[in-house]
Amino acid sequence: MATGLVDEEILKRTKGWAPYVDAKLGFRNHWYPVAFASDIPEGQPLKVKLCGEPLLVNRIDGVLYCLKDRCLHRGVALSKKLDCKTKNTITCWYHAWTYRWDDGSLCDIITNPSSTFIGRHRLKTYPVRQAKDCVFIFLGDGEPPPLEHDTPPGFLDEDMVVCGKNRVINSNWRLGVENGFDPTHIYIHKDSILVEGNDLALPLGFAPAGLSENSYRIVDTDIEGGRRGVYDLLGEASVPVFEGYVEGQMVREGHFGETRVANDISIWLPGVLKVNPWPNPGLNQFEWYVPRDETSHYYFQTIGKPCADAQEAAAFRAEFAAKWLPLALEGFNDDDAWAREAMEAFYADDWGWVKEMLFEPDMAIVAWRKLASAHNRGLQTLAHVRA
Amino acid sequence: MATGLVDEEILKRTKGWAPYVDAKLGFRNHWYPVAFASDIPEGQPLKVKLCGEPLLVNRIDGVLYCLKDRCLHRGVALSKKLDCKTKNTITCWYHAWTYRWDDGSLCDIITNPSSTFIGRHRLKTYPVRQAKDCVFIFLGDGEPPPLEHDTPPGFLDEDMVVCGKNRVINSNWRLGVENGFDPTHIYIHKDSILVEGNDLALPLGFAPAGLSENSYRIVDTDIEGGRRGVYDLLGEASVPVFEGYVEGQMVREGHFGETRVANDISIWLPGVLKVNPWPNPGLNQFEWYVPRDETSHYYFQTIGKPCADAQEAAAFRAEFAAKWLPLALEGFNDDDAWAREAMEAFYADDWGWVKEMLFEPDMAIVAWRKLASAHNRGLQTLAHVRA
Amino acid sequence: MATGLVDEEILKRTKGWAPYVDAKLGFRNHWYPVAFASDIPEGQPLKVKLCGEPLLVNRIDGVLYCLKDRCLHRGVALSKKLDCKTKNTITCWYHAWTYRWDDGSLCDIITNPSSTFIGRHRLKTYPVRQAKDCVFIFLGDGEPPPLEHDTPPGFLDEDMVVCGKNRVINSNWRLGVENGFDPTHIYIHKDSILVEGNDLALPLGFAPAGLSENSYRIVDTDIEGGRRGVYDLLGEASVPVFEGYVEGQMVREGHFGETRVANDISIWLPGVLKVNPWPNPGLNQFEWYVPRDETSHYYFQTIGKPCADAQEAAAFRAEFAAKWLPLALEGFNDDDAWAREAMEAFYADDWGWVKEMLFEPDMAIVAWRKLASAHNRGLQTLAHVRA
Repeated sequence: MATGLVDEEILKRTKGWAPYVDAKLGFRNHWYPVAFASDIPEGQPLKVKLCGEPLLVNRIDGVLYCLKDRCLHRGVALSKKLDCKTKNTITCWYHAWTYRWDDGSLCDIITNPSSTFIGRHRLKTYPVRQAKDCVFIFLGDGEPPPLEHDTPPGFLDEDMVVCGKNRVINSNWRLGVENGFDPTHIYIHKDSILVEGNDLALPLGFAPAGLSENSYRIVDTDIEGGRRGVYDLLGEASVPVFEGYVEGQMVREGHFGETRVANDISIWLPGVLKVNPWPNPGLNQFEWYVPRDETSHYYFQTIGKPCADAQEAAAFRAEFAAKWLPLALEGFNDDDAWAREAMEAFYADDWGWVKEMLFEPDMAIVAWRKLASAHNRGLQTLAHVRA
Repeated sequence: MATGLVDEEILKRTKGWAPYVDAKLGFRNHWYPVAFASDIPEGQPLKVKLCGEPLLVNRIDGVLYCLKDRCLHRGVALSKKLDCKTKNTITCWYHAWTYRWDDGSLCDIITNPSSTFIGRHRLKTYPVRQAKDCVFIFLGDGEPPPLEHDTPPGFLDEDMVVCGKNRVINSNWRLGVENGFDPTHIYIHKDSILVEGNDLALPLGFAPAGLSENSYRIVDTDIEGGRRGVYDLLGEASVPVFEGYVEGQMVREGHFGETRVANDISIWLPGVLKVNPWPNPGLNQFEWYVPRDETSHYYFQTIGKPCADAQEAAAFRAEFAAKWLPLALEGFNDDDAWAREAMEAFYADDWGWVKEMLFEPDMAIVAWRKLASAHNRGLQTLAHVRA
Repeated sequence: MATGLVDEEILKRTKGWAPYVDAKLGFRNHWYPVAFASDIPEGQPLKVKLCGEPLLVNRIDGVLYCLKDRCLHRGVALSKKLDCKTKNTITCWYHAWTYRWDDGSLCDIITNPSSTFIGRHRLKTYPVRQAKDCVFIFLGDGEPPPLEHDTPPGFLDEDMVVCGKNRVINSNWRLGVENGFDPTHIYIHKDSILVEGNDLALPLGFAPAGLSENSYRIVDTDIEGGRRGVYDLLGEASVPVFEGYVEGQMVREGHFGETRVANDISIWLPGVLKVNPWPNPGLNQFEWYVPRDETSHYYFQTIGKPCADAQEAAAFRAEFAAKWLPLALEGFNDDDAWAREAMEAFYADDWGWVKEMLFEPDMAIVAWRKLASAHNRGLQTLAHVRA
């Protein structure tokens, strides 16, 4: 079923991964992180947008709930003027239709307490789960799969401590995924403060050797706990390029640092990258590119560290705030944010998917597109957004 | 005939009042107020937009005239640079095509006085009428009906003195009408300064009792002087709600004031509300929601008081400026302006008319939609705007 | 072949010059000026947009080159972050695909020096020519015609010295052409500082006499060196109007100055006006209305003077800067820039071409439309922009 968002002519011309090209608003029936736990204190609802749908997330007695942010009656956003008369409910500011956070049921209408509508209608609710201080929403219908299936290996490990940052980037979510997983985009980072600051070994690119099939490994069975993803093996299947040549002349060097990182890079449905280790040995970067609407995504960045005890965890949190947040998630990744927004114009009318010209190191991206086309749990359509 | 503005699928799914849903640019062949008399001093043309059409209104020797604000030649707005060479004419700033205000005739072309076009073409003119210090334009074709037919009962009464305010609201005009006539929207006014300031009796809502047919009275015959409208009888056919309950718990009270108002509320074609008395016994609020373009309307607010003589009229005008303007038309109605703009997003692509879920007290609104669908004098179409 | 930019219904209703109405993005396979020589110093690429296509122009060892400003790989603009590693090349900031300025060939990819793509792909290049201190680009395919064919008579004369100004105007390019060539638009200049400052003889308009065929002369053969254009002969075929009448009353006079100018006015493909003499005897104004995108054009204004030697040229340049730039290109022509932007709204949805009502003096404009429809070298289409 087409989403109604992309021209059919374009879908015909991107045969190998048409569903992916059609997924302008993301995939349905997946878990997505939208906020950190601390962004949603008790009783202070947070407004977010996910795959084009307006949502409102609240915490009651520590438990998280999520409602569609659109009153059933006249369609206004409840968030326009929050009006929570009791702990368990939210009242629309307009005609006082009142919904329960737990099941979305229309439990009261203050302006007409005798209405036959009371108890008979329900606002859409969305499953919410908090894990690793991150708040995940299941954007879909029916029973959600385990959260594990939509997070990268290691992220949910018991000893993993996670810190992070979240922001809106003005590009489609797929340009986020592809920039992150892109093996040769490292060229944009060559002058990053992280590289020198942390003395990283960072080449300018990679010269793939042999068959391109060796440059990635697809995970499309249950061998990794229900996850579906692609490992980039370019580091192994190619020669890193540390000397950049133009017209036979050496014009630029990579950074021959002592710190070895990024041995293991993988991308997972519904659109989350794992880089291990990063930005330092012993750390992992997990980052999501969460569909917000057609032209923006949440860049949900986290760094995780396995910690033996609370003391180590506290030390990591302090280190994160002092060092990895400014140096890596901002200093380094700001370049990525910029690059994605620079790509948006070309893909905005969807013709970019036809006109682009992928080269050898992009085979891992192609593998991701095919995997995502085959193993997503549904496309978010215009009809879903309108529903 | 469809307007060309709304998707046919939507019109099919709103069968009971499809013409109303199609009336995105308002109804044609009606009188609309666009300004107060003092906004148009002698010889100082005022630019307005009505049902998508650009207009220019002028006063000559006290008499009002209205021309389409678009030169026949190359389509520029005459108002871009006003150039009135004589009292009776307006000259286009570009090539000096010159039109008479009274009949729109192309009476001179300064740049080519021998042109055969002179005297043979005519800019569209619109009937204008000043009444109660308000300037009305007939947006339509042919002979206009009496102004009385498009104004609420009482407005044109000889002893009625009218004061008011006009402003642009960024929502479709129908959201203005429906917010104004909406019996349970009073919930948004519960904290208004007018309520306490004027010690109003204002419930939180209404619990309709019995048949919904008793909650409104349709006027679709000539019993009220050619007017077509709907009276809201919810005050009589229901129990006012002064105590708001959520989960069985009293969460909010209405205001048990001494001042009894709003006994008599009615809505009239082409989209004007009468509330009597309001905001105080002895006063009437008459307010128009005038189609400007697809996404905005003029909120033309007036308060009228029957006055026995000039002295009483002068006292009322002073009272209006000192009290009712800041307290009622601004303090109280600013909430309405805000609410309509908050509704616009849901109805902007017209699907809101399909997705909304009206409840019992909205039956008066439904009655209005049906009346307006049946008794309007024509739909403003894209073709009219382009003509 | 239709451009895909204009509604077919409109093209049907503008039969006499449908190709012209369809040419919303300009004509293809023509030379257009986009900058002055001094705007592009050695090794400092300039970004421009021409007929909807993003371009980058550079100067290397004095020679000009032009590339499409869109990397073949992921479509980003090279200009977003200029990265020229060698004099002869430009490297994309993203994945370091590197192109030669001279032929657009992909000569290196720093991130993957072993790529099989190297030497096999080519970025589109555009012929560039510098003449009279102006930089011309051939927006088209195949071998370009001589520059002479797309410039007005005299412009390329050996002794012609040219000075000018370039700016973006927010209207379609055709509104620029038609305003410039329009015989009666002089009405907008009646209060210009140039008129009094230079004591010009400037009527308010023209009263054509006799047959309209005498009011222009079409050049559609090779009699003028391959150029195609139209001379406006209204000056000869009509009576200048110096007294403006409205309702029989004289309301405005033209300027009875001593300085006689504008004897000879002509418009040439692809959209360039010549006024001779202007703004003073002995000077010529040549001005281009260069298609930028659907809603904007470069107003490329020049004044040319035949100069006998370097000393005379230097004196002219000084005079231009001190006098003709502020008085004519700005003081006088600012009114034209304003008028074109005022026309844009009416023509933006293309219906203006159907609804406009041309009068007698506009016959020269009609002649231009027909000539342009018949003799352009191709329409710029949506497919070209997407290619």
